[in-house]
Amino acid sequence: MKQTSSFHPASPILNFCPPSLPASWYYDDVHHLREISAIHHSSWIYVGRVNDVPRFTMQRIDVAGQNLFLIKDGEDVIRCFHNTCRHRGSELCQQSETKLKSKLIRCPYHDWGYDLSGNLIQTPHATEAPGFDRADNGLFDVLLKTWNGFIFVCLADHAPDFSKVADHGLQALDNWPMEQLVTGHRLVKNINCNWKVFWENYNECLHCPGIHQSLCDMVPIYRQGVMSAAEAPGWTPDQVFTPVLKEGAKTWTKNGKSCGPEFPNLTEDQRRAGFLFVTLMPTMYIVGHVDYVRVVSLRPLGPEETELTAEWLFMPETLAQPDFDLANVVDFTMTVMREDGAACELNQRGFHSSRFVQGTLMPQEFDVFHFQQWVRLQLGESPYMPDDK
Amino acid sequence: MKQTSSFHPASPILNFCPPSLPASWYYDDVHHLREISAIHHSSWIYVGRVNDVPRFTMQRIDVAGQNLFLIKDGEDVIRCFHNTCRHRGSELCQQSETKLKSKLIRCPYHDWGYDLSGNLIQTPHATEAPGFDRADNGLFDVLLKTWNGFIFVCLADHAPDFSKVADHGLQALDNWPMEQLVTGHRLVKNINCNWKVFWENYNECLHCPGIHQSLCDMVPIYRQGVMSAAEAPGWTPDQVFTPVLKEGAKTWTKNGKSCGPEFPNLTEDQRRAGFLFVTLMPTMYIVGHVDYVRVVSLRPLGPEETELTAEWLFMPETLAQPDFDLANVVDFTMTVMREDGAACELNQRGFHSSRFVQGTLMPQEFDVFHFQQWVRLQLGESPYMPDDK
Amino acid sequence: MKQTSSFHPASPILNFCPPSLPASWYYDDVHHLREISAIHHSSWIYVGRVNDVPRFTMQRIDVAGQNLFLIKDGEDVIRCFHNTCRHRGSELCQQSETKLKSKLIRCPYHDWGYDLSGNLIQTPHATEAPGFDRADNGLFDVLLKTWNGFIFVCLADHAPDFSKVADHGLQALDNWPMEQLVTGHRLVKNINCNWKVFWENYNECLHCPGIHQSLCDMVPIYRQGVMSAAEAPGWTPDQVFTPVLKEGAKTWTKNGKSCGPEFPNLTEDQRRAGFLFVTLMPTMYIVGHVDYVRVVSLRPLGPEETELTAEWLFMPETLAQPDFDLANVVDFTMTVMREDGAACELNQRGFHSSRFVQGTLMPQEFDVFHFQQWVRLQLGESPYMPDDK
Repeated sequence: MKQTSSFHPASPILNFCPPSLPASWYYDDVHHLREISAIHHSSWIYVGRVNDVPRFTMQRIDVAGQNLFLIKDGEDVIRCFHNTCRHRGSELCQQSETKLKSKLIRCPYHDWGYDLSGNLIQTPHATEAPGFDRADNGLFDVLLKTWNGFIFVCLADHAPDFSKVADHGLQALDNWPMEQLVTGHRLVKNINCNWKVFWENYNECLHCPGIHQSLCDMVPIYRQGVMSAAEAPGWTPDQVFTPVLKEGAKTWTKNGKSCGPEFPNLTEDQRRAGFLFVTLMPTMYIVGHVDYVRVVSLRPLGPEETELTAEWLFMPETLAQPDFDLANVVDFTMTVMREDGAACELNQRGFHSSRFVQGTLMPQEFDVFHFQQWVRLQLGESPYMPDDK
Repeated sequence: MKQTSSFHPASPILNFCPPSLPASWYYDDVHHLREISAIHHSSWIYVGRVNDVPRFTMQRIDVAGQNLFLIKDGEDVIRCFHNTCRHRGSELCQQSETKLKSKLIRCPYHDWGYDLSGNLIQTPHATEAPGFDRADNGLFDVLLKTWNGFIFVCLADHAPDFSKVADHGLQALDNWPMEQLVTGHRLVKNINCNWKVFWENYNECLHCPGIHQSLCDMVPIYRQGVMSAAEAPGWTPDQVFTPVLKEGAKTWTKNGKSCGPEFPNLTEDQRRAGFLFVTLMPTMYIVGHVDYVRVVSLRPLGPEETELTAEWLFMPETLAQPDFDLANVVDFTMTVMREDGAACELNQRGFHSSRFVQGTLMPQEFDVFHFQQWVRLQLGESPYMPDDK
Repeated sequence: MKQTSSFHPASPILNFCPPSLPASWYYDDVHHLREISAIHHSSWIYVGRVNDVPRFTMQRIDVAGQNLFLIKDGEDVIRCFHNTCRHRGSELCQQSETKLKSKLIRCPYHDWGYDLSGNLIQTPHATEAPGFDRADNGLFDVLLKTWNGFIFVCLADHAPDFSKVADHGLQALDNWPMEQLVTGHRLVKNINCNWKVFWENYNECLHCPGIHQSLCDMVPIYRQGVMSAAEAPGWTPDQVFTPVLKEGAKTWTKNGKSCGPEFPNLTEDQRRAGFLFVTLMPTMYIVGHVDYVRVVSLRPLGPEETELTAEWLFMPETLAQPDFDLANVVDFTMTVMREDGAACELNQRGFHSSRFVQGTLMPQEFDVFHFQQWVRLQLGESPYMPDDK
């Protein structure tokens, strides 16, 4: 469930009830591969934090089923390569992390050596016959970009414009000291649903009253199934409203208190809102609080299985506090995420009915609609057009 | 293995040896889906007993891979719906049984409410935009029929004539107090074979001498591999014969004694025969004894896996006897079913030979032949015609 | 890893670097079935030792996914049949071995009886209608050949010329008492790689220095990544060289000592070399030592899984020695095989990169190249032709 802290001057709700995506798109194997190819192979994919990659150590990652590795050199430049030797196709990094023994990346099979830019340097014991050119046999590289201490890669030859990836723009988190933050806790969990179900659940709050008790307690407006007053049935433009935390709460923790010193450069509005969601399709969202940042990312494992990773980022001095209470921070959102995971699996189980061709979105599900339009566009399908337009 | 108690005035055995069905029909994934679609999606499928469905409780069932639920209202009317909400496709009944909290069926995701006829009544927190019509968004219903206390559903829009489903006609069990019987024991077991193998094994007794020791002891004629004298090689029409239980046995129990009071309205013939088989293709057979009734049903899980359910039905007063001995009833047929299950799995394992295109049926396998002709017909294939016809 | 003991008068190394096979051939399901059909269904496949098959006992084997059994009659003639009854397709041999109760092979389902030549003899309890001919209903037989005490079968109707199967000719092992040898140890192990990866690894020694420490200690030339001096970069024809075991070693055992009496008829060259590799594509290689013989065979279980079987064969008097030390024999090659298995799995894991279309073979990988050309030929594909030819 996403929570927006932005105030809408006019109501964002739809004046029609569009059909949802075809049900088969949520479980069909062939369609799933089509989405992975059209979306996940062509997008910027979040793969980890810059300061979680040690120098001279191959770190294996899996992006859309591709076996890759990250490597950071002596100047802290990070590169990403396919985890495949050009000789006979052997895997190069066999463990989740492999520390280099020299300044070369060595294939463990026949000992071919590549430098950290991926150039082939050595083919021990083997003659290089005429026609063999080392320049043709370097590692396969993968496009890479860092932003706010996050690493993104793109499998395609031509990457989309990174500046358009974040829904609130690349400056949205500029008041947070993002690059200095360190990972204080990480949770990995598989949920039995299509990756799109996760984003649809994230993009509406109609389910909040029935599903999220503690969250509705923290953000009282959610109890009405809306993210802002403008979404409520019967709203009129004179009713201005910004969602806020409950009386006395400063941040999303169990007791509502900050877990350490607050970030110094936040605006008064940011401090009052208590949270800011930034979404980077198709794999990640970030929530900035006054005292910590939470990152949730997802990796489709199949049409009906998705891996979720949650990471909690802190200033080093926050973690260093002798009485730092990690559970107070983590437990609150763990509960919300567990509730959302169960809701997603519940949704997925209903899709296989032979009669259910597609569902219907309600006016309050405008962000689900926008997400589904984006999916249609990525696949080269026509967007939905309401009859009266 | 089926046992017929009907006397054949002329020999039913074939005067030719027809080919069996193509071997690939027993393991090929695509062909299997073709059968499920042509047969199981278009037939009346047994799903449970009327008196095992409590009022105001959703009971989840799986029919041919479709997730459905039964619901009984205050007038004891039972209905069946797809277990899918019309909003975004969520599952409605999450456990095998879910008791309603109100008189509405509530979606656990966004709280949409439907009445027990499936009409959409509420969409909480959501505006219903122009063009949204509740009448278009009721639950998907499934055809349902009850007979003798058994519930049958049909996934198709147009169901086949129910009166033609039972091989001996709908009156066959009229002398049994079927609706009053209650389920005294239930066994669910998966066997690794195609669903057709189960029915083929059921439809012949040539395997009895080698496979069923205790059954041949109970029904002596089975020791000759036949279900009636008319099937034996060399039979002439003057030899009239009705299969009977062994001397002193009244019913199919371990000790041959009735497990409680006998059903009062049986004819003398029914009492003497000791058992009556009624078959309802493609999912069920019923055996009426003088003191209890047994039901066996099957559910294809895949081309090479089938779920079997056996249910033992009794009069309440039989179960209430202080010295009622369930094991004496259940163990006898459990042994027969275990033997048949092993035989079916044995048969299945041989099908994958690249040389085995199809087998050959013997004259005594006339009911296997009729079953296979029925399958050909359901699939729109030509029935087998012997050369001399 | 293969080790050749044959001396090459001229260098066998290539003067070009050919492309390796397409990466998808190592994991694609459809391509895998194409190879199994074109290669494993049409070749002589090793299935066991003559003296490991007892008389009058069905022994189940799996060849390229086909369920078969061997049966040895009273004159020690071994035959092979599909493990499928002609009646309704039941499996005949249910366990890995089934001792016959009579001189007939009996179907456990309906008791049909076949003699040991596969002729149908009995169809108990069943009338044989006009048109049914026992001669049309014998067991499906499989071509079978024995050589040096090894049994080979071929699923095709027309088998390839057996005399061309062994790479060094059928006489290569004539100085070993092959038929008298008995199986002293057997190991079965699955490795997660395509069957071709196993043979490619077997056909080159470039990986030896990095992978096989103890083997390089036993055969010192391997430390240079070559199987003979002629393969080394910079070799000139005046450098004559035969690979030998290290000083003092007689055979491939942990301590280098013979595990029992040496085979009496070996030539001085065979004794000095210490090992002789004989390869029978696509399923087997044999290594003759001075004191024992090792056999390694493989069975593809899927595109990315292969079952390996290693067998150690000895003279009965060797095994009968009171102080016979099996571990001294087995441990040495177990280590080498474990290292090769890990290397094969390492290679397999790198194939799925979307960028890796195919690899490059180096001049020293001439036998990998010959194997790949053979695969292309079996599949009806054009062999690779270097540009300058």
